[in-house]
Amino acid sequence: MMDIRIGLIGAGWMGKSHTNSFVNALLLFGPESGKPVFELVSDVSEEAAKIAVEKLGYRRYTSDWKDVVTDPNVDVVDIATPNFLHYEIAKAALENGKHVYCEKPLTLSAGESQELAELAKEKGVVNYVGFNNVMNPATHYIKELITSGKLGDIMRFSGTYDQDMLLDEALPITWRHINKFSGSGALGDLGSHLLSVSQYLLGDMENVNALAKTFIKERPKSEGSSEMAEVENEDLITVLANYENGAVGNISSSRVATGRKNYLSYEIQGTKGSVHYSLERLNEVNVYFHSDEEVDRGYRTVYLGPEHRGFNAFNPAQGIGIGFNDIKILEVHELLSAVTNGTPYICDFAFGAKVDRTINAVLESAKEGKWVSLKKAVEA
Amino acid sequence: MMDIRIGLIGAGWMGKSHTNSFVNALLLFGPESGKPVFELVSDVSEEAAKIAVEKLGYRRYTSDWKDVVTDPNVDVVDIATPNFLHYEIAKAALENGKHVYCEKPLTLSAGESQELAELAKEKGVVNYVGFNNVMNPATHYIKELITSGKLGDIMRFSGTYDQDMLLDEALPITWRHINKFSGSGALGDLGSHLLSVSQYLLGDMENVNALAKTFIKERPKSEGSSEMAEVENEDLITVLANYENGAVGNISSSRVATGRKNYLSYEIQGTKGSVHYSLERLNEVNVYFHSDEEVDRGYRTVYLGPEHRGFNAFNPAQGIGIGFNDIKILEVHELLSAVTNGTPYICDFAFGAKVDRTINAVLESAKEGKWVSLKKAVEA
Amino acid sequence: MMDIRIGLIGAGWMGKSHTNSFVNALLLFGPESGKPVFELVSDVSEEAAKIAVEKLGYRRYTSDWKDVVTDPNVDVVDIATPNFLHYEIAKAALENGKHVYCEKPLTLSAGESQELAELAKEKGVVNYVGFNNVMNPATHYIKELITSGKLGDIMRFSGTYDQDMLLDEALPITWRHINKFSGSGALGDLGSHLLSVSQYLLGDMENVNALAKTFIKERPKSEGSSEMAEVENEDLITVLANYENGAVGNISSSRVATGRKNYLSYEIQGTKGSVHYSLERLNEVNVYFHSDEEVDRGYRTVYLGPEHRGFNAFNPAQGIGIGFNDIKILEVHELLSAVTNGTPYICDFAFGAKVDRTINAVLESAKEGKWVSLKKAVEA
Amino acid sequence: MMDIRIGLIGAGWMGKSHTNSFVNALLLFGPESGKPVFELVSDVSEEAAKIAVEKLGYRRYTSDWKDVVTDPNVDVVDIATPNFLHYEIAKAALENGKHVYCEKPLTLSAGESQELAELAKEKGVVNYVGFNNVMNPATHYIKELITSGKLGDIMRFSGTYDQDMLLDEALPITWRHINKFSGSGALGDLGSHLLSVSQYLLGDMENVNALAKTFIKERPKSEGSSEMAEVENEDLITVLANYENGAVGNISSSRVATGRKNYLSYEIQGTKGSVHYSLERLNEVNVYFHSDEEVDRGYRTVYLGPEHRGFNAFNPAQGIGIGFNDIKILEVHELLSAVTNGTPYICDFAFGAKVDRTINAVLESAKEGKWVSLKKAVEA
Repeated sequence: MMDIRIGLIGAGWMGKSHTNSFVNALLLFGPESGKPVFELVSDVSEEAAKIAVEKLGYRRYTSDWKDVVTDPNVDVVDIATPNFLHYEIAKAALENGKHVYCEKPLTLSAGESQELAELAKEKGVVNYVGFNNVMNPATHYIKELITSGKLGDIMRFSGTYDQDMLLDEALPITWRHINKFSGSGALGDLGSHLLSVSQYLLGDMENVNALAKTFIKERPKSEGSSEMAEVENEDLITVLANYENGAVGNISSSRVATGRKNYLSYEIQGTKGSVHYSLERLNEVNVYFHSDEEVDRGYRTVYLGPEHRGFNAFNPAQGIGIGFNDIKILEVHELLSAVTNGTPYICDFAFGAKVDRTINAVLESAKEGKWVSLKKAVEA
Repeated sequence: MMDIRIGLIGAGWMGKSHTNSFVNALLLFGPESGKPVFELVSDVSEEAAKIAVEKLGYRRYTSDWKDVVTDPNVDVVDIATPNFLHYEIAKAALENGKHVYCEKPLTLSAGESQELAELAKEKGVVNYVGFNNVMNPATHYIKELITSGKLGDIMRFSGTYDQDMLLDEALPITWRHINKFSGSGALGDLGSHLLSVSQYLLGDMENVNALAKTFIKERPKSEGSSEMAEVENEDLITVLANYENGAVGNISSSRVATGRKNYLSYEIQGTKGSVHYSLERLNEVNVYFHSDEEVDRGYRTVYLGPEHRGFNAFNPAQGIGIGFNDIKILEVHELLSAVTNGTPYICDFAFGAKVDRTINAVLESAKEGKWVSLKKAVEA
Repeated sequence: MMDIRIGLIGAGWMGKSHTNSFVNALLLFGPESGKPVFELVSDVSEEAAKIAVEKLGYRRYTSDWKDVVTDPNVDVVDIATPNFLHYEIAKAALENGKHVYCEKPLTLSAGESQELAELAKEKGVVNYVGFNNVMNPATHYIKELITSGKLGDIMRFSGTYDQDMLLDEALPITWRHINKFSGSGALGDLGSHLLSVSQYLLGDMENVNALAKTFIKERPKSEGSSEMAEVENEDLITVLANYENGAVGNISSSRVATGRKNYLSYEIQGTKGSVHYSLERLNEVNVYFHSDEEVDRGYRTVYLGPEHRGFNAFNPAQGIGIGFNDIKILEVHELLSAVTNGTPYICDFAFGAKVDRTINAVLESAKEGKWVSLKKAVEA
Repeated sequence: MMDIRIGLIGAGWMGKSHTNSFVNALLLFGPESGKPVFELVSDVSEEAAKIAVEKLGYRRYTSDWKDVVTDPNVDVVDIATPNFLHYEIAKAALENGKHVYCEKPLTLSAGESQELAELAKEKGVVNYVGFNNVMNPATHYIKELITSGKLGDIMRFSGTYDQDMLLDEALPITWRHINKFSGSGALGDLGSHLLSVSQYLLGDMENVNALAKTFIKERPKSEGSSEMAEVENEDLITVLANYENGAVGNISSSRVATGRKNYLSYEIQGTKGSVHYSLERLNEVNVYFHSDEEVDRGYRTVYLGPEHRGFNAFNPAQGIGIGFNDIKILEVHELLSAVTNGTPYICDFAFGAKVDRTINAVLESAKEGKWVSLKKAVEA
């Protein structure tokens, strides 16, 4: 049993979510994987930081994130800031020898992410990116279907991550629409989640070809304002891809996808079987085996259960569904376990850099209107 | 190749449907199962009978059904009249040694149906009741799942046949609401279809216990009229049952089931597997095998295909769906084949009498508010 | 902000679940609804109680539940023991003026439950039964559909709670199979959840008529043993009911329902609309409005979201699903809020007594093979 | 009432399907739309042609299709031959002033299709391509959703047509795999159906960008043979597109899509509503309206019914599903009606030429690895 002292940077919604997840990881997995201690919290708003002490139980607060990355009593720097600050903070934390837990995306540029991945490796610390969908028990189950050979050779990954939360054109401009803060639109915000899942399940892509579109080209500067500001990035993106393993990829994302609420949905077709999944039905995986007797053959609706990695921390039986927040608990548990016991983990900075490399290539392709090799992207 | 001369009684919607089905049976199965010849048609409306000659291709017409049952050039008497006439016509047709094809229900009383069944047996003619849902390839597939033992011992049959076509209380009274014409309400009209499927799949019931309810107690005498007439029978019925094979039954039907369109839906649970099905998704059978590996276990969505009896008359591959009318074609093909080649068939008058026996017992139970044995019902 | 000192009785799986829920209620709702303090825990196993101090964070422990109900520093007695102990403990707690939070079912007899309800009323304390499915945001949404009149007059409640966890006949006998511990079989264990939902949504029943069946009549005395013990109660039960509001009920439950995992599923049909729901798809409510334009009319698949009571404690948007455990958090929050702020709550002991009254009537009906009035049941 | 004398070319499976459809069109719609007369049939196999006379009811036969296109007693030339013969036959039929009914695809080249379209226009005859999916009542309903403005401005068309019928690599080479007979692989065979639906619903594309892949690169020359032949065309294709109306397209097709049987599936997202559909559930259209009250908002599952164009020829009520073959009946009815009454129809040769133009552009894009404008394609 080991105390793991958390230094949280960013006391907003995501910071609260991280903290709650740490509490629950302890409740569900016990102190064997490390006992989180809420040592220090920072926020640009001193007031917000103060509230985090009161409400989330942090011992101390500061309004300067630099205090966190240099604090001798902090073991893990937990970065829950706006995306554009990730690089600078993560770099400073690594340089101070801290373990780093960074929300997705790692940075806004493949090059910077690669730099952080190399620095983390050099420092030998835990370096974890919060791609929570990778830790979904459904994702692990699908990974197992692939690695066991039950699906045969993978021919195709086809998916989309669609939401309609930005459908209303009266919604004002936010950081999501301005590239220096967000890097990109639907792709970085939503599509990156699907890319992380694809990266985990099928590995690297060779090249990509993308089409991006902005339907709502300007938005009010603020709620109700008649002054308009330009939307700098895509509402919708669709991507063709070749994977290194020979599969064909087709990945999309829209933030104006009328009717879709949290539709991270994909299908994987292999020579022996197939699987399709949607996050809107988090607890169901649909799997097909070509080897089933023909008369009885069809997609099986498999409910997540104790047979699927991660599930039994929450519920004792199939069909007693987990929720989206439970996946974040599995994520911080994996992080804690890595810090405490040196166990392997999936979404390290090198993984995050690969996702960012794909994002960069996709954006370049959409801009240039042509195929872009990922090898080239990594050098960018 | 043998000519089978049809004498149709009742030239309305159902008579047209039968005729079209005969034409298609010939197109799809060829003359080997008998070539239907449209010899004679009768209708109380001479005009309607005349039109049937012109439009449906019958050779001759009459306004007296007695001409049909005695006509020496008629091989099969096809009864598509209102239900309350079935008994008299079928009896006369049998007495004249005709093969008889009668729409469901056979009669309005278990005793009369039993009498017809015995008479038909004595005469040695084909005697066929048009319970079309029995001839659904999905039903055959489910029957095969049971008889093969794949589902183990059957523990439970639970189903409902719901429609909302009579939801609107402004719809006027019709024969459906008056017992001397209909025998009963939702039970005879819709529920009997589910009972026929249950009879085929699980066999006889031992006893039943029912609750019936009429929500719309009176309806306009005619469209828009302010004079009201009493609705004599149930809008909704729910039945508990014990099957002779030890299974528990739960069968319902409503004609005011808001939102349900053609929801003949049931589930069968056995010790080794289960199946559920809804006619609203005609081409899908959901089947579960307990013997599947636990990690991959779930209901399989099996699309009907050439592996399932009857399907390949229509389409060459799974997922290319058949329609509801196609099932009626399978029914008349089975009838033609029985006449021509003496092949066995499922829904003979004895079968129809069993369904009517169940209906009688259910109605008695609902009236008396107690369990009713089916043995007693057959003597009624 | 008020400290609410919990005295937990029963440190097993359910006790842990309650405790985690209290922690999360504080995290999500803040201390305004009361701050749970884990004062005292008891378990017949002193070892288990001790572990609860270490792992769950209770201050003190005891092996005698009587210490808890009399402890001056305990505000809420939390009963998470086997069911047959509920009555005695709850009674003692009430007599000591404690607030009581009791897992479902309240007791094993309608009479005892009624007695507790009256005692609780007399004492003026919070008295809460843990029927968690009532606190599902989906249930609240459906309740709102009914009370707003959107569904019109309710005609029918039809549902089942099916699981297949006891399908394997090699599983040994447990307390679930022995009536002095469980009161009944599938009905009390699973069906009572559905009854609680029905009680909340439609109110009281007038009378019931039930059919119960035990398929696996004996089980090994212990795992692998060849000595067998009798299974005393039903594997499957099906119930007909009349509600006081005029609706017809049809409620079932099976613990050997092959293929069903957590299938608490029901449909409510009203004169203006209908709704159907299954707990296996916790975050989806299917609702139909007859007033929709006919050409576009169909069941709507509505994902739970911030518009639905309770949801937004967990997630900011539709489609980001909650999990089954999150519902328990809503339950303990309602309890805490009642203690702290005197807010109203749904599942009080009078509510629990009504569910137990229904259970008693159903069991009597199944035994006697006839309709049983609920008025009679309450006097039993 | 007018006799329409059919001259069928190609007496195989498709020719039989056409003939049966003509018979049923007459049964269902009556002679007002023209009475088909089966005048003449040709097949390269004289034996097959002879059998068509006996079984399908044609009056005369020939083994030379040229006899059909020149026969003075033939009104409509019905082309049901292998695809590569369409151009030559259709051209000759048009030159002889015949109405022409040609199975999809019109030809194997956009240029030839365009030539036929112009010739047909010049001749003033009915010129109909058998894109049956366009005549699906579901497609008409979706078209109406778009044109009525209920979906707002269309932003996206995303779909795939997947089957797994060619998954088995032991299946021998056929005409489908050889370009001079098929023109292309999955694209022409399956994808063209989806393109026809897209053409009808959204109109023309501006440009396309495609990725094609052949997974099974060679197949046995004949069943069981160890000699192998090259598969010349794609198993899977994925396409990005810009529509002229501003929407983004993403269209795919695979003939080795493990688990998918007849998965012609697509989603259309507009600024006010969305719709998704799959041919595997032929009778269900899922439609979402953003204007629905938020608390009750979700995709509606609308069953096809009499409200939807074409449906009521078959069944009187929603939920009584039509089958895939019924759609072909609607197609030949539209054809007959055009010949008899001069009514407008959708899939004329100009329409077919547009689909072929798209196919050409997609194939060029896949080959060249870059965006291809459809304007350029039409000149090719």
